[in-house]
Amino acid sequence: MDSEAEFREFVLNGHLHYVPHVSIDCAILGYHDQQLKLLLIKNKFMNGWCLPGGYIKRTETLVEAAARIVRERTGIDNLFLQQFKTFGDPDRAQISKFDAEAWAKVTGIPDGKSNWLLDQTISVGFYAITDFSKTILHTDFFSSDCAWFDIEKLPGLEFDHDEMVKEALHTMRLQLYHYPIGYNLLPRKFTLTEIRALYETLLGKKLDVSNFPKKLLALGLLNKLAEKRSIGAHRSPHLYSFNKTRYNQALRDGIVLS
Amino acid sequence: MDSEAEFREFVLNGHLHYVPHVSIDCAILGYHDQQLKLLLIKNKFMNGWCLPGGYIKRTETLVEAAARIVRERTGIDNLFLQQFKTFGDPDRAQISKFDAEAWAKVTGIPDGKSNWLLDQTISVGFYAITDFSKTILHTDFFSSDCAWFDIEKLPGLEFDHDEMVKEALHTMRLQLYHYPIGYNLLPRKFTLTEIRALYETLLGKKLDVSNFPKKLLALGLLNKLAEKRSIGAHRSPHLYSFNKTRYNQALRDGIVLS
Repeated sequence: MDSEAEFREFVLNGHLHYVPHVSIDCAILGYHDQQLKLLLIKNKFMNGWCLPGGYIKRTETLVEAAARIVRERTGIDNLFLQQFKTFGDPDRAQISKFDAEAWAKVTGIPDGKSNWLLDQTISVGFYAITDFSKTILHTDFFSSDCAWFDIEKLPGLEFDHDEMVKEALHTMRLQLYHYPIGYNLLPRKFTLTEIRALYETLLGKKLDVSNFPKKLLALGLLNKLAEKRSIGAHRSPHLYSFNKTRYNQALRDGIVLS
Repeated sequence: MDSEAEFREFVLNGHLHYVPHVSIDCAILGYHDQQLKLLLIKNKFMNGWCLPGGYIKRTETLVEAAARIVRERTGIDNLFLQQFKTFGDPDRAQISKFDAEAWAKVTGIPDGKSNWLLDQTISVGFYAITDFSKTILHTDFFSSDCAWFDIEKLPGLEFDHDEMVKEALHTMRLQLYHYPIGYNLLPRKFTLTEIRALYETLLGKKLDVSNFPKKLLALGLLNKLAEKRSIGAHRSPHLYSFNKTRYNQALRDGIVLS
């Protein structure tokens, strides 16, 4: 939504094209070099930061809507998106913090007049993991700012988005034990130390140095390459790559990794 | 909803008290004595079986709504309910199968006239596990039948409910590795064979006879009792009970069980 005219049309007639009362919010996690970040935006009608979100077109599936919302707001495309939880507490909107004056000015709808965007909304949460060093962020008419934040140094978020982030991390960490991860987040050839660091950063805890890589190898997810990386006089660890067939199979069927 | 008058009021004015465009569907799993069943209902306007479902009051949280729906439709109360996925494909309603004649007759609303119950709906799925031998089922004005079906012998379901059941089982089985289960599903004192049978029935696969109970014991979830059960001349296995403190802690914090 790049213009004010487009936004006003959305406010006035959007309920004809979008499903009212249901929104989508996306916790987009960014990994790079042992850092985990979260993408946050500012919108025109709230003071603080929140997760990027939007509405579902009446012709879209939920995951199509989530992919479009992420793409439109952030420029990130072809992202792995996973639904984690739906949020519907009646008080989740915290409408008191809403800037009714800005709303009235931009939309032409007086404060207090009913509008589909102001009615009770249940939100479907999606999470994603991408490499934040490969993204190019951009804002639009509705979102005034967009930035990556260190997961350990998040500001307090608007609405129920603090809870959403907590639940997104919880689900992501649980699913790490059941689905492979790393493709697109690691270089094509990587060391066991690098893949362990990825898991440790995402899980937010240390893993057993000797056991953990053995499990990935036992599952057949990794190919050991003949090539080594030279990182010092007496240190040249083996390089590995993903076995893409086994990786895709594991994504489809699930694994048990402990 | 026990009377036709109540139902008509719900059809005409329900959108004022319930959130339109959002429903809840519940996959209620029943375990008893190594059998796993699923609760299905028939409603007045569809020919086939479907999951029990309903709408969310504007004053309720999602889990409160799910609990009320299950209670109203099935008489089951105080059930562990877990959200598993939200379903929103635009074609999920299969409105073609809808009995428009019955609808027009019962509601007084002519076929083709718009109504909040006939508009596009996104549904939040919850699953639960209960002991089916302890439930007393009942129907109401809207649901004409209600019964337990063996999980291996389900009929084809209406709407997208086949997919919902598949996803509910998938999530339940994944979560079995991360949350304890068995309280209220096993007798207060049970053998290791009985708890393994519970897990095997829920997971739909065999578990390692020697390793599996060791893991539950290592997690401190079970208390070994002095008492034994006599089941034959040379067979008197030890009895166990749940360590309720550790059990509740594990429910809250999660575990990793492989």
